[in-house]
Amino acid sequence: MDAYDELLERLKDIDLIGQIGGLMGWDQEVLMPPKAAVLRAEQLAWISKTGHQRLTDPRIGELLSELESGGGLDDVQSANVRLARESYDKATKLPTEFVEEMAKHRSRAQISWTEARAKDDFSIFRDDLEKAIDIARRKADYLGYDELRYDALLDLYETGLSVARVDPLFTGLRENVAPLIKRVNESGVRPDMTWVEGSTWDQSGQESLSQAVSEAIGFDFSAGRRDASTHPFCGGANPDDVRWTTRYNESDPFGSLYGSMHETGHGTYEQGRRRDLDFQPAGEANGLGVHESQSRLWENQVGRSREFCEWALPLWQECFPENMAGISAEQLWQAVNLVEPSLIRVEADEATYNVHIMIRYELEKRLIAGDIEVDDLPEAWDDMYEEFLGIRAPNRSLGVLQDIHWSMGAFGYFPTYTLGNLYAAQLLEAAREDLPDHDEQIRRGEFGPLLAWMREHVHQRGSILEPADLIEEATGSPPTPDAFVEYLRDKVGRLYGVST
Amino acid sequence: MDAYDELLERLKDIDLIGQIGGLMGWDQEVLMPPKAAVLRAEQLAWISKTGHQRLTDPRIGELLSELESGGGLDDVQSANVRLARESYDKATKLPTEFVEEMAKHRSRAQISWTEARAKDDFSIFRDDLEKAIDIARRKADYLGYDELRYDALLDLYETGLSVARVDPLFTGLRENVAPLIKRVNESGVRPDMTWVEGSTWDQSGQESLSQAVSEAIGFDFSAGRRDASTHPFCGGANPDDVRWTTRYNESDPFGSLYGSMHETGHGTYEQGRRRDLDFQPAGEANGLGVHESQSRLWENQVGRSREFCEWALPLWQECFPENMAGISAEQLWQAVNLVEPSLIRVEADEATYNVHIMIRYELEKRLIAGDIEVDDLPEAWDDMYEEFLGIRAPNRSLGVLQDIHWSMGAFGYFPTYTLGNLYAAQLLEAAREDLPDHDEQIRRGEFGPLLAWMREHVHQRGSILEPADLIEEATGSPPTPDAFVEYLRDKVGRLYGVST
Repeated sequence: MDAYDELLERLKDIDLIGQIGGLMGWDQEVLMPPKAAVLRAEQLAWISKTGHQRLTDPRIGELLSELESGGGLDDVQSANVRLARESYDKATKLPTEFVEEMAKHRSRAQISWTEARAKDDFSIFRDDLEKAIDIARRKADYLGYDELRYDALLDLYETGLSVARVDPLFTGLRENVAPLIKRVNESGVRPDMTWVEGSTWDQSGQESLSQAVSEAIGFDFSAGRRDASTHPFCGGANPDDVRWTTRYNESDPFGSLYGSMHETGHGTYEQGRRRDLDFQPAGEANGLGVHESQSRLWENQVGRSREFCEWALPLWQECFPENMAGISAEQLWQAVNLVEPSLIRVEADEATYNVHIMIRYELEKRLIAGDIEVDDLPEAWDDMYEEFLGIRAPNRSLGVLQDIHWSMGAFGYFPTYTLGNLYAAQLLEAAREDLPDHDEQIRRGEFGPLLAWMREHVHQRGSILEPADLIEEATGSPPTPDAFVEYLRDKVGRLYGVST
Repeated sequence: MDAYDELLERLKDIDLIGQIGGLMGWDQEVLMPPKAAVLRAEQLAWISKTGHQRLTDPRIGELLSELESGGGLDDVQSANVRLARESYDKATKLPTEFVEEMAKHRSRAQISWTEARAKDDFSIFRDDLEKAIDIARRKADYLGYDELRYDALLDLYETGLSVARVDPLFTGLRENVAPLIKRVNESGVRPDMTWVEGSTWDQSGQESLSQAVSEAIGFDFSAGRRDASTHPFCGGANPDDVRWTTRYNESDPFGSLYGSMHETGHGTYEQGRRRDLDFQPAGEANGLGVHESQSRLWENQVGRSREFCEWALPLWQECFPENMAGISAEQLWQAVNLVEPSLIRVEADEATYNVHIMIRYELEKRLIAGDIEVDDLPEAWDDMYEEFLGIRAPNRSLGVLQDIHWSMGAFGYFPTYTLGNLYAAQLLEAAREDLPDHDEQIRRGEFGPLLAWMREHVHQRGSILEPADLIEEATGSPPTPDAFVEYLRDKVGRLYGVST
């Protein structure tokens, strides 16, 4: 067996371990009985340790050196070697015991976070959060960094990301988006929400709507599932077993539907991967920013368009005949595009969303740097919401406890959401050039052409290119916030009659 | 670290791998999307291979030799060494590639069996069954045997079991039970089933009843789950994560309830294990015969008693107010004890049940010996049902395709069901001596004392003793069919006014 084949065989082993871990993680979030938590943590720690041991096997280092000094590799092979090298280097910097400690703590912290959130009591999560931050710092130290510890964490979720790159991005967005939000607020215009807020929205109707829309977009339910969980996510084992979740609130029908479209975006990306590259890193979905572009595309660019609302109106009427009596597509469109400062990130509108991300990004920077203590975090959170959005959470569940990420130790993850918003707008702008009838297709519920475009230009390209190069190949220009700002300006202008 | 501690550490690793496999198997049966089957087979094969590699590590052989030649071990330590030796010897006889082949084939065959059963088409399963038999033969050859290949397979599920031991057992049961069935048929007595057969039994009512009864028996739903699956089973990962299933038929309310009580019996056994022996073989449930005694105890000895029916009647009325109007506990008791030849094993009555097992046992013996071809199996199945029960399946789904076992490669497993029936009767007879108010307790729905007796005498004893020794310790005599025969004779006599 030559070195490349041996490398692929070893990578397959590692990928299978990851698939098993994915399934167990899904089970833990969705349906595991509560008392099972302690031993599930042991199982996940074993999986994590075993995957780490396989990845850090010195033989992989030998094979990589041999392949790197050789040559004659095509683009897929080169990508596999490059990606395996990145994983190997990152993994060999983390001792096995540390990886095991991380996995155990992640399981434990997710339990305490869930309880803290349910009981609205930050103190239940406090110690586990402090330990999670300590672990994140030690992880950064193991991985190494030039300027800031936090850079090492950002780089984990999108190769090359750093504070130096993200700071100006948020500054740029703030300069363009903040004035928009301000003018909307000053305009005094507010869409009619009485028909939404005055009704009860049966969970069964929300489930039917989520299912129908996800099927229409093209999610393959014979290769995946829809379930409910506290924190919506898309997980599972592989492209044949993609599992996404949403959550239902009977006084708000939009959270479950747009959450479902978001996760459907992630799910169709996973299902659209090149199957001849199964078990190979080159076939995997690209970094988190690109992943998020697919979820944001369907949730916002498509799902909150006027055309989509026209198509979806009859579905809404079918699922909620009484509530929707006399409601027009225009009313629906306005309601799903309400621009208004709110407390919950996952339910935030497109204009204010990046402010939520910016707050988390700023807090993470300070937590990792030690500029803020865990005990001061809940108030700091609330203070920033007050400063940037003018609102303050009435309790911890709607404040600092709302997101699962820190309980998972995923510091450095949040900024990829904003990258996703930028990429989504940029990708749709490019897709429109190939799909001149895009708006009409959406109006008719023909989502196939757009999905096919994403399949070809994004999903099937896997991780062969680095994220920024993939965006440039697909759109003709490197990542930029321009398309997003333009999209938002146009939409808010139409909805609220304001301009900047 | 001394040898014993090192052995325990290695056994913990192996147990964790088994826990993960248990979870994945449950997922596959209960909710995995269909297209995920192929890659799930790869995952399970990896788990199986990895567990096998750990178990067959020569270091375990060294540790066992050291401990066996030493001494000073208490009864739990001795049991761990003995059980680890049994596993090690069995595993080292099976090459890693063969174990992987078995696991892959098991996943594949379960898919084709499910499809064949759904489409009532034996040909879909035929090739996979033939391969499963071939694999079972090769397994027996690897394991070794004195007289018959099939003996090696029987021994896998209950240590020491062999054709020489099982043949007389079935002969004995036939001699005592067959005349009973014959007299019941000749009596012309048949309980009133019109109130059962003439109604539709809503699935939601059946679910409520199953849940209420399982909770009353003492199954801890914060450490387990109830779900639906094609073939009811009890699985999961460990005592904190026990997952059982049942299935619902709206024209028969008994299948789901008694299936639920059966799996609840398995489930309470798992939940009742000694937790200070987590990850140790001595703490695991004893062989399959003993496991089945716990399921049969609650399903039949308790669940089909006159006293249980009196207690359960108000629950029945609550779940099915219209269907149960005017039905007495006596009518319920008679209906759940209908003795009548039927096609489906899992729904068979206590008297005919062992005939179902005997047919499978005889067919397995012949399949493994090569005395019958796979192509002739469906007709041979039907012929034996006609010979011994006087009925013939109208299709394959009600005939040869009804059980999951062969698709799982579990040849040699069925006889443990009959052992379970015998042990259950023997254990209850012994428990009655300590619980003089047993009948009254059941009538009042006080299941705690009986469960506590089983906890002490069976569950908490784990696998410290071999199965036959455990039964003798708990009941005062070695395994015997006497208690079962006496129990059946008494009950059938009361129900049908017949005696032998």
